[in-house]
Amino acid sequence: MAKEKTKILILGGGFGGVYTAMYLEKLLKKRDDFEIAIVNRENYFVYQPMLPEVVGGSLGILDTVSPIRKLLPKTHLYIREIDSIDIEKKTVTLLPQFTHKPTTLEYDHLVIGLGNVTDFRGIQGLHEHALPFKNLADTLIIRNRVIDAIETAAFTEDPDLRKQLLTFVIGGGGFSGTEVTAEINDLVHRLIKQYPRINKDEVRVVLVHAKERLLDRELSPNLGTYAGKLLQKRGVEILFGQRLNSATPQEAVLANGERIPSKTIISTVPSSPNPVIEHLPFINDRGKIPTNRHLLADEKHGIWAIGDCALIPSDDEGSFSPPTAQFAIRQAKILAHNIAATVRGEQKKQFSFQAIGMLGALGHHSAVAEIFKKFKFSGILAWLLWRAIYWIKLPGASRKMKVMLTWLLDMIIPIEPVQLKITPSQAIASLHFEAGEVIFYEGDYGDYLYIITSGEVEVLQTRDGKENVIANLGKGEFFGEMALLNQRSRTATIRCKAPTDVLALRKQDFGVLITNFGELRESFEKTEKKRSEELK
Amino acid sequence: MAKEKTKILILGGGFGGVYTAMYLEKLLKKRDDFEIAIVNRENYFVYQPMLPEVVGGSLGILDTVSPIRKLLPKTHLYIREIDSIDIEKKTVTLLPQFTHKPTTLEYDHLVIGLGNVTDFRGIQGLHEHALPFKNLADTLIIRNRVIDAIETAAFTEDPDLRKQLLTFVIGGGGFSGTEVTAEINDLVHRLIKQYPRINKDEVRVVLVHAKERLLDRELSPNLGTYAGKLLQKRGVEILFGQRLNSATPQEAVLANGERIPSKTIISTVPSSPNPVIEHLPFINDRGKIPTNRHLLADEKHGIWAIGDCALIPSDDEGSFSPPTAQFAIRQAKILAHNIAATVRGEQKKQFSFQAIGMLGALGHHSAVAEIFKKFKFSGILAWLLWRAIYWIKLPGASRKMKVMLTWLLDMIIPIEPVQLKITPSQAIASLHFEAGEVIFYEGDYGDYLYIITSGEVEVLQTRDGKENVIANLGKGEFFGEMALLNQRSRTATIRCKAPTDVLALRKQDFGVLITNFGELRESFEKTEKKRSEELK
Repeated sequence: MAKEKTKILILGGGFGGVYTAMYLEKLLKKRDDFEIAIVNRENYFVYQPMLPEVVGGSLGILDTVSPIRKLLPKTHLYIREIDSIDIEKKTVTLLPQFTHKPTTLEYDHLVIGLGNVTDFRGIQGLHEHALPFKNLADTLIIRNRVIDAIETAAFTEDPDLRKQLLTFVIGGGGFSGTEVTAEINDLVHRLIKQYPRINKDEVRVVLVHAKERLLDRELSPNLGTYAGKLLQKRGVEILFGQRLNSATPQEAVLANGERIPSKTIISTVPSSPNPVIEHLPFINDRGKIPTNRHLLADEKHGIWAIGDCALIPSDDEGSFSPPTAQFAIRQAKILAHNIAATVRGEQKKQFSFQAIGMLGALGHHSAVAEIFKKFKFSGILAWLLWRAIYWIKLPGASRKMKVMLTWLLDMIIPIEPVQLKITPSQAIASLHFEAGEVIFYEGDYGDYLYIITSGEVEVLQTRDGKENVIANLGKGEFFGEMALLNQRSRTATIRCKAPTDVLALRKQDFGVLITNFGELRESFEKTEKKRSEELK
Repeated sequence: MAKEKTKILILGGGFGGVYTAMYLEKLLKKRDDFEIAIVNRENYFVYQPMLPEVVGGSLGILDTVSPIRKLLPKTHLYIREIDSIDIEKKTVTLLPQFTHKPTTLEYDHLVIGLGNVTDFRGIQGLHEHALPFKNLADTLIIRNRVIDAIETAAFTEDPDLRKQLLTFVIGGGGFSGTEVTAEINDLVHRLIKQYPRINKDEVRVVLVHAKERLLDRELSPNLGTYAGKLLQKRGVEILFGQRLNSATPQEAVLANGERIPSKTIISTVPSSPNPVIEHLPFINDRGKIPTNRHLLADEKHGIWAIGDCALIPSDDEGSFSPPTAQFAIRQAKILAHNIAATVRGEQKKQFSFQAIGMLGALGHHSAVAEIFKKFKFSGILAWLLWRAIYWIKLPGASRKMKVMLTWLLDMIIPIEPVQLKITPSQAIASLHFEAGEVIFYEGDYGDYLYIITSGEVEVLQTRDGKENVIANLGKGEFFGEMALLNQRSRTATIRCKAPTDVLALRKQDFGVLITNFGELRESFEKTEKKRSEELK
């Protein structure tokens, strides 16, 4: 019997996850007793530090992304959402796609690098009306919103509405908030030159920051102050010592009660761990995964953690690695070594790293930089350094070439307010099935509720190897609600007896409706009770 | 009193609409008694002939689009959906955005250039499960779907599912069907080289065409036959004399009953006029707008038509302009002249044009061409001609430069299976309002139904200039259903008495639910009846 391969499963395709796999591929390239797999929502790796430039338009939409498959030729890639992690069974379950069957992956070592997600819970209206700035889709949505607002303002006479449309409010003056503010300010001012009906003085870009200085956690006081002054000089209003308290479709409300009429509110502030890891036993009360200096979170269960979702002790007693790409890449190298060492019975290494420096781009050919906590500088020199460093670190030669070309083009071609509109998917999907086709099988993952609009289906259950028809359903009747209400898998198979059209309502939408809509809930509960009794 | 300006309103930003505005700007550049406006869904003009290359990936997503504002500096641009046209009042109403108030535009001359839309009505399951290929978003969706299918096949063991995932069915062998088939075939075969678990022999690309020869309406028999042979040589299966009869999530069903298991079905066949013009009195029974040779559709009401939505007599007795960019651009020149001539009381011109030639790209450095109905050729020479001609016609120098660069890059950089995922918008939106804010006003356009999840609102009506509170609503109650059920505008104003959270369900989604879900409909109708009576 061949020796079982050691299975290393990495969750998350950010800097931590991708670089861990990259180092593992190098370390293990001559061995065939390892299998590396990575799970990510997209099939590409996003080069996060350059995202603000996509909002501003000096980089194209896809210039910041590299296909994971190309970066990691020896790693199995699963493009899926994660449903759950079972640390006892050592499995991870992925949500189904194209079918209703979930996929279950086994592992010996699990690397959790899921970063954090934007979490607006607890702040009224933020979830509904503030745009997050986190991933590639967010940058597109922000860019589209800004252009939409300007397009609409261009032919709006109502002065109140014009004011709302031309005011852009950003919450949070850390790296991403400051950078995105700089880019939005540049974008808006470059764009409105093409709109003769909009006056420069009508535009407000407002940055709301809780502290008295921008970048207070990231940079030295001097540089933080400089960054703030620079943005103010370019027309950005900065409200220090303030925070967003609530957001509505019409305005941002600050903690001091001030109301800023605006249709575009962006918040970079609250982030929380990925819901997938919320229920793991070793999570601390702030939702992070504490590790030792070997990056082990749970030695017994073979669980490692890396990047923004992990709490990793740093060299200074009592302090921890900051959530930056610089640190994640260094952690990945140690983590890859330690997994290989564990399997080989060799010595593990401790993570230890001092940041080389900090850089923040401020749009418009300027930046702030701080190197070895000693050299501080700003302006165009810092900006050139910023571009040079991130360009060098950009993975892949062809990516490098594309980004360089786009930057060159950007210098000679004026900005274009082109939006990429994708029609929103319909909330309630219509599906058509032919006679004999199965809509879902007993045991499948329950992800939709169905309402029959024409045709006829039969409900089948297999008991003791025998298939029994337990019901026939026709126009106006619904099915699939039981798996949703009780979070179980499907209790029966649905097969069409004739060509059948159904409406399918997604689990989460159905959940929202049923929670808030008493009449609907009652009617469903009644049916479900009746059907449960029939099945007994 | 200053002389009123003549208002020219153009609907649609395709070749017909954009070029008409372009020629009008030139003709009227020294006069200030004209006002030109254009309404389009997007703020960019899509260079349609190059769209198949976006599917294949040899052009970037935004390489084929140009901002309308830049092409038409003197034209007012409205980025909106059209709600209705009132030919008696000479107004066009646009759907609201950012607010609930529709915008009404007046005109003296109306140019309808709305093209046609993909219309899957009448073919079972096509609307639900076939992807259209018409606009920029469609190309992205098709490209994403192809990549998704390959990604999923890469780790699927189930042989039936693998077969479905790796089979791509395209309906319609006209220009767009043939070109998109060629691009998909290239894309799939270039991509799977990067997926060691997928075997070349597992891939099926099937083109279903109703006639016995591809491009039978567009090209001479020789060239059409050549195009078909070329695709077959590259592995495409062509089913002649067949059509798609129905589609399900699992398979395409042909007219002869044959079932092809597939998760990716693309149909380029059925198109119908834009619903906005369906009810106009001068529409013919095929949904087109017949014009005279001056491109006038209705002289009395000042209505002109152009492009794919129009039926324009051509030089040959009894025949009409074909729906191609070549013709639309020439029509635009005549149309612009004729509008200017009408206002000045000058002589109108008749439209007359013989196509110079026809070109069809077939991917993979090949094409078919036919010039002056005499010279026919194919292969790489035709392909170079194709690129040269469309590149020359591409509007804007910077666009030209970008496309040239992308083509050059494409020759040296291998293809990347990067998908651009945009999380679908939530079906049911949550909204938060602060006390005192108005959710909608009496008279507003009724576009959403609302369910209160927390807080309290008051329902207000203004009668004889006095504002009356007619009801208070709280948690679990809904409002806004009356405007939806009866297609009227809002009959009352809703103002929040406290911070309030609501769920908003779009008009069309609500419509689908209420039509098919008896119990819900009854409950709504009861409430509505009660409320109607209270208002009397």
